[in-house]
Amino acid sequence: MNQGFSSRLTAAIKSKRTAACIGLDPRREALPPAFAGAASLEIKELAAVFARFCCDVIDVVAPLVPIVKPQLACFEALGLHGMTALAEVISHAREKQLVVLADGKRGDIGSTAEAYADGWLAGPWAADALTVNPYLGLDSIEPFVKTAHERGAGIFILVKTSNPGSRDFQDLASGERTIYEHVAAGVEQLAARTAGGATYGAVGAVVGATWPRQLDAMRAAMPHAWILVPGFGKQGGRAADVRGAFHDDGLGAIVVSARDVIFAHARPEMNDGLADTQWQTAVDRACRDMIDRLAADTPAGRLAE
Amino acid sequence: MNQGFSSRLTAAIKSKRTAACIGLDPRREALPPAFAGAASLEIKELAAVFARFCCDVIDVVAPLVPIVKPQLACFEALGLHGMTALAEVISHAREKQLVVLADGKRGDIGSTAEAYADGWLAGPWAADALTVNPYLGLDSIEPFVKTAHERGAGIFILVKTSNPGSRDFQDLASGERTIYEHVAAGVEQLAARTAGGATYGAVGAVVGATWPRQLDAMRAAMPHAWILVPGFGKQGGRAADVRGAFHDDGLGAIVVSARDVIFAHARPEMNDGLADTQWQTAVDRACRDMIDRLAADTPAGRLAE
Repeated sequence: MNQGFSSRLTAAIKSKRTAACIGLDPRREALPPAFAGAASLEIKELAAVFARFCCDVIDVVAPLVPIVKPQLACFEALGLHGMTALAEVISHAREKQLVVLADGKRGDIGSTAEAYADGWLAGPWAADALTVNPYLGLDSIEPFVKTAHERGAGIFILVKTSNPGSRDFQDLASGERTIYEHVAAGVEQLAARTAGGATYGAVGAVVGATWPRQLDAMRAAMPHAWILVPGFGKQGGRAADVRGAFHDDGLGAIVVSARDVIFAHARPEMNDGLADTQWQTAVDRACRDMIDRLAADTPAGRLAE
Repeated sequence: MNQGFSSRLTAAIKSKRTAACIGLDPRREALPPAFAGAASLEIKELAAVFARFCCDVIDVVAPLVPIVKPQLACFEALGLHGMTALAEVISHAREKQLVVLADGKRGDIGSTAEAYADGWLAGPWAADALTVNPYLGLDSIEPFVKTAHERGAGIFILVKTSNPGSRDFQDLASGERTIYEHVAAGVEQLAARTAGGATYGAVGAVVGATWPRQLDAMRAAMPHAWILVPGFGKQGGRAADVRGAFHDDGLGAIVVSARDVIFAHARPEMNDGLADTQWQTAVDRACRDMIDRLAADTPAGRLAE
């Protein structure tokens, strides 16, 4: 077995002294003016632009953060060309020693789940971790757990997502618990089982930054699970809101910002005094701003001491 | 707007006089002996074999069935080469006038869901329909519905999946209903909304063949939804078990068989008297056998009258 996912993640977080994760969600309409012309490109050329943009972002954030999260949908939307760009982006992130979390929210049964796990965690896509959807049940998650555990990779299971519609099914009450609390109980079991006596296992959870109260409860309910917290920034979550996802030592959570950082050229306070060609400086500023805010308002400040 | 998905599907089913759908789930270890050597191939060569195998299967089943369902995981497992093979398989199926249902069980929020919908239903992958996971809630499904409705495509939302673990979360009771019944209520609303006065809308449901009793109830609960029924054959579902998914006129359901048909060379009763090179004859026999059984034991028999 390789070194465990949790050990590698912990080392990366301690080395960078932050739990900030940059989401790589390239969007045609949001690219910096330096990529002018993207609006009219065919998808083959657009995919090449996505790859260059994401690799340029990676060059800026790689010295600052431990982990990046490519959003598979953004690349899949461009077909084969997009998948080629994705492979390039993952490869570049790995060269820069970043942990790579493929955000695909995959889920299926039996040998089909095995195929997803093989592809993303043990095979050609070579990600370090994958987000997984729990709707199909625990037996659908097992093949991901097995492959992750064997390959020193990780999975993050959707528990309580950041969107308002997460109330529709995740918040329904069954017995004493909501559905997402039932899922969290399953995550904790898998996390504890794969921790093998260590603090964290190969199985983590996704809980949105938009639900501060639930983050507190979820931290308590899943002591062996890393919690991935999307929705920081644009979706409304603030640093103080994600405090509950951390353990007191500053570990246990990974906080994601995507658009606020990668499209920081569009934020006047980050873009101040910069030319169009200096969009990477805006990314650098926004990334450092996020890290500072996490350090100021959450236990992640311990990491910077 | 293009001709609606439901109209095209109905026409295809009436033309072939069956609601059988063949699942395209290529597996290295299950390929016919005619593809000897697959066990030791590198993934690039294996992906090319997958493409050839699936296209050969399509050539056999295209005159017999209205729809095929490529399993995205099997192709993703082979990285970029696998995705290239998938594109080739989809393209070949379309040339053969088959309806193509991409089985990806995708799901995400907002603009990310839009990206998946763009890629699979409106863009480069050019599928006619996509399976969608409802865990993230109704607002996560809306972008798929919108794109499907606008583009004359369809989506099939997971309701009650065929695996035993579907009990873990889908069967939990909340109020008077299980979670999958709550999801089904959402599906019916979306199906009715997109039907525009016709019988079926652009939104269907997935209910496993392994749950005959629930199929009856789900047919009644979602009168405007096509029901996709996987798990026929290998997973234990029999023709009589899927009866409940159909309306009395023989429409309303699509029944999937994958391994039992595409790997029919491994079934002695289908392979009788055949040489290794004649594996397509076994596929033909198994496909016709499935169609005959559906016609004999379900309302789909009406289609053959």
